[in-house]
Amino acid sequence: MSNAASRARYDVLTIGNAIVDVLAQTDEAFLVREGLAKGSMRLIEAQEAERLYEAMGPAQLVSGGSAGNTAAGIASLGGNAAFIGKVAEDDLGHFFRHDMNAVGIAFPTAALQEGAPTARCMILITPDSERTMNTYLGACQELTPADIDRDTVEGSAITYMEGYLWDPPKAKEAFRAAADMAHAAGRKVALTLSDSFCVDRFRGEFLELLRSGVVDIIFANNHEVAALYQTGDLETGIAALAEDAELAAVTLGAKGSLVLSGGERIAVPAPDVDELLDKTGAGDLFASGFLFGLARDMPLARCAELGSLAAGEIISHIGARPQHSLKALAEQHRLLGDMAA
Amino acid sequence: MSNAASRARYDVLTIGNAIVDVLAQTDEAFLVREGLAKGSMRLIEAQEAERLYEAMGPAQLVSGGSAGNTAAGIASLGGNAAFIGKVAEDDLGHFFRHDMNAVGIAFPTAALQEGAPTARCMILITPDSERTMNTYLGACQELTPADIDRDTVEGSAITYMEGYLWDPPKAKEAFRAAADMAHAAGRKVALTLSDSFCVDRFRGEFLELLRSGVVDIIFANNHEVAALYQTGDLETGIAALAEDAELAAVTLGAKGSLVLSGGERIAVPAPDVDELLDKTGAGDLFASGFLFGLARDMPLARCAELGSLAAGEIISHIGARPQHSLKALAEQHRLLGDMAA
Repeated sequence: MSNAASRARYDVLTIGNAIVDVLAQTDEAFLVREGLAKGSMRLIEAQEAERLYEAMGPAQLVSGGSAGNTAAGIASLGGNAAFIGKVAEDDLGHFFRHDMNAVGIAFPTAALQEGAPTARCMILITPDSERTMNTYLGACQELTPADIDRDTVEGSAITYMEGYLWDPPKAKEAFRAAADMAHAAGRKVALTLSDSFCVDRFRGEFLELLRSGVVDIIFANNHEVAALYQTGDLETGIAALAEDAELAAVTLGAKGSLVLSGGERIAVPAPDVDELLDKTGAGDLFASGFLFGLARDMPLARCAELGSLAAGEIISHIGARPQHSLKALAEQHRLLGDMAA
Repeated sequence: MSNAASRARYDVLTIGNAIVDVLAQTDEAFLVREGLAKGSMRLIEAQEAERLYEAMGPAQLVSGGSAGNTAAGIASLGGNAAFIGKVAEDDLGHFFRHDMNAVGIAFPTAALQEGAPTARCMILITPDSERTMNTYLGACQELTPADIDRDTVEGSAITYMEGYLWDPPKAKEAFRAAADMAHAAGRKVALTLSDSFCVDRFRGEFLELLRSGVVDIIFANNHEVAALYQTGDLETGIAALAEDAELAAVTLGAKGSLVLSGGERIAVPAPDVDELLDKTGAGDLFASGFLFGLARDMPLARCAELGSLAAGEIISHIGARPQHSLKALAEQHRLLGDMAA
């Protein structure tokens, strides 16, 4: 992508909800009592967040958020990453910012000074390793076009954004502003569909983004493709996506991934993992690898292989940020051999 | 112990520094650059805490503190536990309190409303699983005799306190006040020596506590016994401790533990662990099991066996609070069979 415009300072800018994960072990009975659908993500208000937190067990805190996780993966691959998202000026906001700074991610967004606290996602882990997510968006509700730092967008080969940005009221305007700036600077714009419930909420708008060319590159898993085209037949969905998108990367769980580009289809196998411990973040990290490869002008198959590698690392441990250097892992698998330093 | 006074509402009250652990992976080179002695615990001021936090990698937050961990272990065994310690009225303080409430630990101490933030311990984990600790005491500096809740002390079969309480300026007065209240109510007072550096700092005072009968029960590991009596010969130290203490529980790492009581010595084997992952909290959890047994009038050997069991659970995973029900584990090992419901 570096040929499309002046050399980019950042490989990828990710924009999304800045969230701290609150992880707690729970039993099945707790989900039943709370009426929660296992494996789902729901949005909750401040009062419900307080109540649920009081009801749940001892917790641990880790920085999260889909786009934040993707940026962390790009940094771990040795890429230059930037992130835009809204935290509050509180302990959790400092914690989130520290974790970005600590891996060298540029994070130009000012913290919210007054009002809602930093967003948190209460993640209930059942003994079968499934995760049920309850997100209180807090300060993320206040992300506006004013937070879109022009220098950062113009200096990034790709600007990648979450479908989840359609949930807070003003973030979709920020999304469109960022896309306009990126395109005006000759850069590319990518979107992840985030989750199938999110697609159900904003199907029409996501299709419009694709068909009108606001988005050049789309990331989706099989469930999200099915939801986008309201079809039970994955092949029908994939064919429709190939029509609508300039470039699409579709993850298929254990069946690997599929890259759709100009009528071409490239299939890449699933990551080779000894023990699958926690699927959270697999999609976020697939995007890290794919985007990093793309920003460095690698062939599409190699981009998807890097995506698989990064996803494989993340599902082999608890938590959605890399615990091992993805750069070292990629070098070990000879996926970075022909790369410019 | 329930015969010594009126039936206790709490099996054990623990009093100590209320600390949130900030865990980050690091490499050996980082410790060298920072001039840190691997495996040690050092106290740092606010400014150094800020600087070190900025220099260290992405982190996770979990509630910790030696006495807090011990209380969590007692709760996990099915005991009634209480905790006294000072957090601030901030996010980390709420987080610490939540983790106490979530496992049913009574926590009557009011949060500090102004001044220092909640204490944190920055724990650097090297690839060999060793931990190097850097503690900023923050709000713990403000624990005073006014925080010693009389009802809670009088209602607890045993009041157990950290040697670490000698570090903040006013906590030792709180310690003495609590010991006086406990004894006046016919209850027992226990002390852990915390760590060998702590013993070096306060040797004279700890010996005086023992010899004057302020403390009835003492917990120490082999290094702390050696430091207390300034001897390289463990046997010499143990003999001296048997003289000074009414009841002592000495942990010896892989060699198990030794109970010293009225000239008698009881040896109990080390916990049987498949994989030792992280030694942090082993002493804290040994104390949980031993104290719980003692509060329920179990024989001393059984108390030490419960201590070993709890320590074994904690060293088989990362983190110093139980991840599995210690009650279920103890029942499985038939250590609770003869206990009154």
